[in-house]
Amino acid sequence: MPSLVLVRHGQSQWNLENRFTGWWDVDLTERGEAEARAAGELLAAKGLLPTVAFTSLQTRAIRTLHLALEACARVWIPETKDWRLNERHYGGLTGLDKAETAAKHGDEQVRIWRRSFDTPPPPMEAGGPYDLAADPRYAGIAIPSTESLKDTIARVLPYYESAIVPVLQAGETVLVAAHGNSLRALVKHLSNIPDDQITELEIPTGQPIVYDFDAQMAPGERHYLKDR
Amino acid sequence: MPSLVLVRHGQSQWNLENRFTGWWDVDLTERGEAEARAAGELLAAKGLLPTVAFTSLQTRAIRTLHLALEACARVWIPETKDWRLNERHYGGLTGLDKAETAAKHGDEQVRIWRRSFDTPPPPMEAGGPYDLAADPRYAGIAIPSTESLKDTIARVLPYYESAIVPVLQAGETVLVAAHGNSLRALVKHLSNIPDDQITELEIPTGQPIVYDFDAQMAPGERHYLKDR
Repeated sequence: MPSLVLVRHGQSQWNLENRFTGWWDVDLTERGEAEARAAGELLAAKGLLPTVAFTSLQTRAIRTLHLALEACARVWIPETKDWRLNERHYGGLTGLDKAETAAKHGDEQVRIWRRSFDTPPPPMEAGGPYDLAADPRYAGIAIPSTESLKDTIARVLPYYESAIVPVLQAGETVLVAAHGNSLRALVKHLSNIPDDQITELEIPTGQPIVYDFDAQMAPGERHYLKDR
Repeated sequence: MPSLVLVRHGQSQWNLENRFTGWWDVDLTERGEAEARAAGELLAAKGLLPTVAFTSLQTRAIRTLHLALEACARVWIPETKDWRLNERHYGGLTGLDKAETAAKHGDEQVRIWRRSFDTPPPPMEAGGPYDLAADPRYAGIAIPSTESLKDTIARVLPYYESAIVPVLQAGETVLVAAHGNSLRALVKHLSNIPDDQITELEIPTGQPIVYDFDAQMAPGERHYLKDR
């Protein structure tokens, strides 16, 4: 039977510095690397070995995938990288320290930007230090200037349906290494979580979340692999 | 204009121990990891940034690819892993210490197995310690029991023509991270090296070899990136 394993990337440098990251390409910290390896060791220990992998175009998710696959001796499985699994684009907040942003815009406004389902942060201005227009990995892609969680879901789910579901239907064990909000999009869909509850759901870093599918491709209960 | 960059994996544990490796999945040593990173640093320093990558199903080549891409900030490029870029299958010699093999079979016989163009080593016997029949990465593949360099070329070249050439024709900078003999197959083809000379051509580990193509897709002179 097919299984879907979701892993949020380990701690990144900007997680550590408490800055809004979004699409900016920040690497893992040493702790983040260790979290990724531990995720792979858990996959090996539980005998849930991935056969196909998907990840975003962002280094912290890709390296999490590679370190996890090394730890379970599966670096040889096919992997596909796609921007639609990227983190939510944080617009004009990208690069800002979260405490500074709260001091500038007020706690309530920042809470809305972080936790509202459909209110995006202010757009990123073109030509700023975090503008990705010249980044070759996004050539030919209409890079958003900001995204709400709803906007993120609107590009994650069609990708899931078109690229990942057919692989699950073929009976594979699919590992998706991605980000807090692109994984929230999948969990919302698979666990049928209402709009007003999904933004409060925390996806822990480096902790494999598993859905087992039945013969009708209905996902079972979401669970942490560590509890299995 | 398209470019093709060939990188042989860095030192593996069995390179270090002087054992025949072939398809057995041995990992890099620390020196091998450093060689891979240095290859990526050279790509960055020379501004020859890969846009598409190919590698084998063997950990030492895949990890060389990943470490090189990390070092040039290109982990996000598409990568394809295929058994046809694997090392030559060393048959019944797999796992043997090269000095022991020489003592057992004689230097001349070992020289023939290592350096003949079309004489394969004795086949690997089924059920031995290095039998790959149960390795899931080769499910559905007719695993050879041994290969000459000629046999290796016979699976590398069709893959090159069908999978890699179209990508080059699209103008990409293609990085192939692979093995001594799968890269010999490509160099023989691209540099038009006769059968009786190719087995003497050494492909150094971790040293990017570059072919630039012209508008008619004719490869230019082979050169080391370090000399450019």
